[in-house]
Amino acid sequence: MMKRDELRDLYFRIRRFTESLCEPLETEDYVVQSMPDVSPTKWHLAHTSWFFETFILRTAVNGYSIHNGMFQHLFNSYYKTVGDPFPRLQRGFLSRPTVAEVYAFREHVDRAMERFFADASGSVYHKYEFIAEVGLNHEEQHQELILTDIKHVLASNPLQPAYRKDLSAAPGEDARLGWTPFAGGMVEVGYRGESFSFDNERPRHCVYLRPFEIANRLVTAREYVEFMDDGGYHRPDLWLSDGWDARMRLDWFAPLYWQKMEGEWQVGTLSGSRGVDPNEPVCHISYYEADAYARWAGARLPREEEWETAAADETPDGNFVERGHYHPVSLATRSTAEEKPAQLFGDTWEWTASPYTAYPGYVPYEGSLGEYNGKFMCNQMVLGRSS
Amino acid sequence: MMKRDELRDLYFRIRRFTESLCEPLETEDYVVQSMPDVSPTKWHLAHTSWFFETFILRTAVNGYSIHNGMFQHLFNSYYKTVGDPFPRLQRGFLSRPTVAEVYAFREHVDRAMERFFADASGSVYHKYEFIAEVGLNHEEQHQELILTDIKHVLASNPLQPAYRKDLSAAPGEDARLGWTPFAGGMVEVGYRGESFSFDNERPRHCVYLRPFEIANRLVTAREYVEFMDDGGYHRPDLWLSDGWDARMRLDWFAPLYWQKMEGEWQVGTLSGSRGVDPNEPVCHISYYEADAYARWAGARLPREEEWETAAADETPDGNFVERGHYHPVSLATRSTAEEKPAQLFGDTWEWTASPYTAYPGYVPYEGSLGEYNGKFMCNQMVLGRSS
Amino acid sequence: MMKRDELRDLYFRIRRFTESLCEPLETEDYVVQSMPDVSPTKWHLAHTSWFFETFILRTAVNGYSIHNGMFQHLFNSYYKTVGDPFPRLQRGFLSRPTVAEVYAFREHVDRAMERFFADASGSVYHKYEFIAEVGLNHEEQHQELILTDIKHVLASNPLQPAYRKDLSAAPGEDARLGWTPFAGGMVEVGYRGESFSFDNERPRHCVYLRPFEIANRLVTAREYVEFMDDGGYHRPDLWLSDGWDARMRLDWFAPLYWQKMEGEWQVGTLSGSRGVDPNEPVCHISYYEADAYARWAGARLPREEEWETAAADETPDGNFVERGHYHPVSLATRSTAEEKPAQLFGDTWEWTASPYTAYPGYVPYEGSLGEYNGKFMCNQMVLGRSS
Amino acid sequence: MMKRDELRDLYFRIRRFTESLCEPLETEDYVVQSMPDVSPTKWHLAHTSWFFETFILRTAVNGYSIHNGMFQHLFNSYYKTVGDPFPRLQRGFLSRPTVAEVYAFREHVDRAMERFFADASGSVYHKYEFIAEVGLNHEEQHQELILTDIKHVLASNPLQPAYRKDLSAAPGEDARLGWTPFAGGMVEVGYRGESFSFDNERPRHCVYLRPFEIANRLVTAREYVEFMDDGGYHRPDLWLSDGWDARMRLDWFAPLYWQKMEGEWQVGTLSGSRGVDPNEPVCHISYYEADAYARWAGARLPREEEWETAAADETPDGNFVERGHYHPVSLATRSTAEEKPAQLFGDTWEWTASPYTAYPGYVPYEGSLGEYNGKFMCNQMVLGRSS
Repeated sequence: MMKRDELRDLYFRIRRFTESLCEPLETEDYVVQSMPDVSPTKWHLAHTSWFFETFILRTAVNGYSIHNGMFQHLFNSYYKTVGDPFPRLQRGFLSRPTVAEVYAFREHVDRAMERFFADASGSVYHKYEFIAEVGLNHEEQHQELILTDIKHVLASNPLQPAYRKDLSAAPGEDARLGWTPFAGGMVEVGYRGESFSFDNERPRHCVYLRPFEIANRLVTAREYVEFMDDGGYHRPDLWLSDGWDARMRLDWFAPLYWQKMEGEWQVGTLSGSRGVDPNEPVCHISYYEADAYARWAGARLPREEEWETAAADETPDGNFVERGHYHPVSLATRSTAEEKPAQLFGDTWEWTASPYTAYPGYVPYEGSLGEYNGKFMCNQMVLGRSS
Repeated sequence: MMKRDELRDLYFRIRRFTESLCEPLETEDYVVQSMPDVSPTKWHLAHTSWFFETFILRTAVNGYSIHNGMFQHLFNSYYKTVGDPFPRLQRGFLSRPTVAEVYAFREHVDRAMERFFADASGSVYHKYEFIAEVGLNHEEQHQELILTDIKHVLASNPLQPAYRKDLSAAPGEDARLGWTPFAGGMVEVGYRGESFSFDNERPRHCVYLRPFEIANRLVTAREYVEFMDDGGYHRPDLWLSDGWDARMRLDWFAPLYWQKMEGEWQVGTLSGSRGVDPNEPVCHISYYEADAYARWAGARLPREEEWETAAADETPDGNFVERGHYHPVSLATRSTAEEKPAQLFGDTWEWTASPYTAYPGYVPYEGSLGEYNGKFMCNQMVLGRSS
Repeated sequence: MMKRDELRDLYFRIRRFTESLCEPLETEDYVVQSMPDVSPTKWHLAHTSWFFETFILRTAVNGYSIHNGMFQHLFNSYYKTVGDPFPRLQRGFLSRPTVAEVYAFREHVDRAMERFFADASGSVYHKYEFIAEVGLNHEEQHQELILTDIKHVLASNPLQPAYRKDLSAAPGEDARLGWTPFAGGMVEVGYRGESFSFDNERPRHCVYLRPFEIANRLVTAREYVEFMDDGGYHRPDLWLSDGWDARMRLDWFAPLYWQKMEGEWQVGTLSGSRGVDPNEPVCHISYYEADAYARWAGARLPREEEWETAAADETPDGNFVERGHYHPVSLATRSTAEEKPAQLFGDTWEWTASPYTAYPGYVPYEGSLGEYNGKFMCNQMVLGRSS
Repeated sequence: MMKRDELRDLYFRIRRFTESLCEPLETEDYVVQSMPDVSPTKWHLAHTSWFFETFILRTAVNGYSIHNGMFQHLFNSYYKTVGDPFPRLQRGFLSRPTVAEVYAFREHVDRAMERFFADASGSVYHKYEFIAEVGLNHEEQHQELILTDIKHVLASNPLQPAYRKDLSAAPGEDARLGWTPFAGGMVEVGYRGESFSFDNERPRHCVYLRPFEIANRLVTAREYVEFMDDGGYHRPDLWLSDGWDARMRLDWFAPLYWQKMEGEWQVGTLSGSRGVDPNEPVCHISYYEADAYARWAGARLPREEEWETAAADETPDGNFVERGHYHPVSLATRSTAEEKPAQLFGDTWEWTASPYTAYPGYVPYEGSLGEYNGKFMCNQMVLGRSS
């Protein structure tokens, strides 16, 4: 556990970073929900504040005054034991509160959290410090969602506005694909450290694995184009049955944000549309596409435990948001002499073949926070997780 | 036809009025599409400018430069012979152009229209003056849509923001319902004047009518509540078959924007929610509800030609937007001693029993403007039209 | 009104004819509902019997015993004032009652109707004789529906079974298209005779018409192919807006039951699939297609009153079911020397431009029979009616 | 592997049993598809024959004549590498082939299979004998589907016909619930024998398990009613998020086929509807309901490997179809003195908490048969499997 003032500093650092992500936006950009899975940026800003108000301030701070009672309804994502969440599909119907009013809500919550860090008695602080950590990790998840969602909002617009034109690309080279062998046997997976972890990362437990190999880098655009050129999107034998149905129903023909213009593949990024770099990792593909690609390539997606094993001893370093690319980069910026798998951290989430289920012995958070993760352990696949 | 400078003055008066309707809005309010039939306010502002750019400026003004080529696509409502209209259901997905950029587009168009009025040769002006009149009537239609649509956007929001809090109500009395008799026989309907009319208002033509009566005022909220209290929404025998299906599927139980709170009916208006005035005209009901009400009341909706006949000799005066109510008002503010039907102008659109079809001898506008009205003569009912 | 024994004989003649239409069917054919608008044949057989049981036998015949109480629910089409109709979309989910049991139900009803004709007192008979006539006309409507629906059931089957292989075609010649002029003016429409009519055919009333012309024959397949070859299904300017939406959504490219095989248009008929005869009338097209064709041809669909006027003085003779073609036939089998419109009776229903509404002064049947027609006067177009 | 004549005898025994299951049906019952997951009985009869024709007879038997080329299309379930399967949702639209024609198809296939068993050379027989075994196991799966599907067809009918009235119930007692402990550790799962197994049952592999307990009998109706009476269907905290959405959207309130009549729960069975026996196992509940029940009961569903471990050493004996109940039975007909889990075989499928995925090292069948199982390893949960 962090010390109180460390956590306080972290709180404000993370909150400020969230807001800094919004600086490039026009007011109008904060409002739009361009598809059901997207939330408007101002909704993210308010929801992350709702989290602290609901799970800490309401009960931990004497005399805390709810900023706006209706916000309890509007910015509840899915916690049914806390109240009646506003329908997700209608988040884009809300012109109010305005962006300025949402920032005022954040300010209200931040001032109260400051009081919490300053004034809470030891026993009260002790009771809530972990929830504060959950709230910060939660806010970091929404930082990622803000970028993911605004990317979709802007890319849906025929005017093709860029989020930031000044993001640097990082062209690399055609790094040779190799396979790193692992012996398998009895391995341990799940969080093993002392610092924060989500309930669904615990408990650490044993799994028995057969020997396996894992690719030493991500699949590149060049390789994915080979799959496409070989009829990948037109051969049902390569696809799971549900995947083929989705591909037909939704008319998939390439990764999301790819478009062919005058014979060249273009990719939409947060800095606008540009030609596909053949060496960059392919991203924004569904599980079904990843699975079909793997079958075409004569391989398979790794199991969650295999991926965890491969990543376990690596230094969590990579193309994270701090590097300022906001897009996966090709590998030549790093050493590939070694056989170790690269790009396990940063760049992009990586599909595994494992459905999302509870670890053996899983115990959800207590109370309403138990709705955070546990009730979604169904009908989803695990993605490789960085750090 | 108006003189050139009269039309020029009218142009700027109407364009400015459109903008004045938007003054109460926050930037965020311009963006939202809260249901498929709603368009975002900024879309209305841009589309009405697109109209002048597309049908006049592009060809009538030498050296006119298109403001933004993509706007030709984004703000085309449904003119397929002009290009590929942006999908209606996605208008709310567009955060750009920003509101400021839309106003700049309006300014660009207005400056060019000023040049058109000032510099067009006689023959060019003659060729386009009628289209300019169409464009202004078109813009007035969208003024009404702006109010209709922003009403829905704000009313969909649990925060219940008001468009303008300062709109005055006009409580009246319980005006006695009477029936005005008309002899029928051969009547003429369709536009007969010299000034502007839409293509679907012509040609004037003869219709033979049986004797009929028409109510001397609109149905009041009090009467409609009686219908509801008598099980109006629960008796399929009162409804058209399609109407009953809609009522069940959409769970209708009262007019749109009505809600019962602590036993009292509240109505949402552009100045916020308030108690229903029993003497105010009921509005925001579907054709099916109007039809069911009429059947319950032992009456029927008037035919289009009956309504036209009743309104033909009346002075077009009433509760129009200029009065500043932005809501229908009860009748006691006017004389009801006479037996003549009142409230035919202003207040609210009035359902007739007539499907929307072409008048005998109807000829659509020439060219792409022919898409304005003709292609919609299907699956809609005629509403009583004011002025 | 017919005499009692005439009506009795007609009753049994019509009932037997219904059953004779089913002779070519396999047991399995009676069961299937191949689209929402189709009803299984055995449903038609039972529903028409339900009609007599519900509206006559239950109250007119002392001691009549309901055949099966559940049939009151299962075979009620849409009479909500009589009970709760079984959901239309699930008619094809009912394997029981079996076909044999449905015929037993018919037999039960027929025996009771025989008693009714034989034994009803004068006053009881007088009270019900009109309803019996309604029931017979109702059954004739369902005879048509049986053929329409079984045609769809069989045509949906890749095995392409024929209803009857022995139906005779009647190839004709390319009859020249001409236009028959009518003076218009004040005309009368609506039923004027003494014998049976539906409530929606009354009252006879005056309508004022402008002069008009009507084609002297139906549109032929040759003409329709010209429309198709001229891009008829690819030019939105020819279509109503709703029509174009339907054409795109449902992927229409030709009349229902037409398919191109090896460059030749084939048409599915009740005697199986065969090459299109260029001189046969085109049929199985929607209102939207008929409207688009008319616009392409520089014409328009006739108004209901125009069609009625054209047909008023013609002898009701034509290609009815008794001729045994079960398909429209080309015109050369009849004289075309004269300018009079042909094919107004028999062959096919003919689209008019008139929405289906109540005639001025329309009064629905009394009681539950009032649901027969009145509640459907909405969102449908009038088709030219034979006899 | 069985000897050739043993397999031959088995073939005819299984084929005859399929047909014996259909003896209680009326012709009409064979035709209906009462929901998307149901297939008409005659489709099952034909599809299982299509299997032998497609995967054996076409290539293994010289001079074999395809019974009807179109059947290759109609009765292909989902094998895209073999051809274009007829759309699953339209199986109930096919009145033809008739039931008699389907039996003729079966006869045709059986005669050819008889020739195969009699005349195939050693090498040909060797190549196809395993496929014949697959086909027989496949047919047994469809025997179960025939009963499952006809149950739905008949239960959807308000006439509530019974499949067979003569099925014997087996009322038992309230067997005490106990929990059988297992030590866990390294266990092996997957098929280990010499006789037939499906590809998805292999290879046998090691799994490491924590100690666990498993209930010594199935959940009874009594227990499930307690869950319902405690608000089980009204407490979102008990449900997975997707489960709650399904429960709301589909309006679940009890197990499928349960209905409350005059305060008593009735259950629909293949012998008709009858009062729920509180001691009978609850069945026809979804994964979401089973999961919610387990959470309510303070337990969890077992993992696939736990269930397999519990069942591994049990004698595969239980309430299979041969016992003639066609419904799960309560436990008192068996000994419960011991602590061993009962009812693992027969009675009903049992939900596990494990998503359906490939076993480590899984290899699909070769060729088109590879579509049998592999492409469905997604978005499904594993059920406990008997024998």
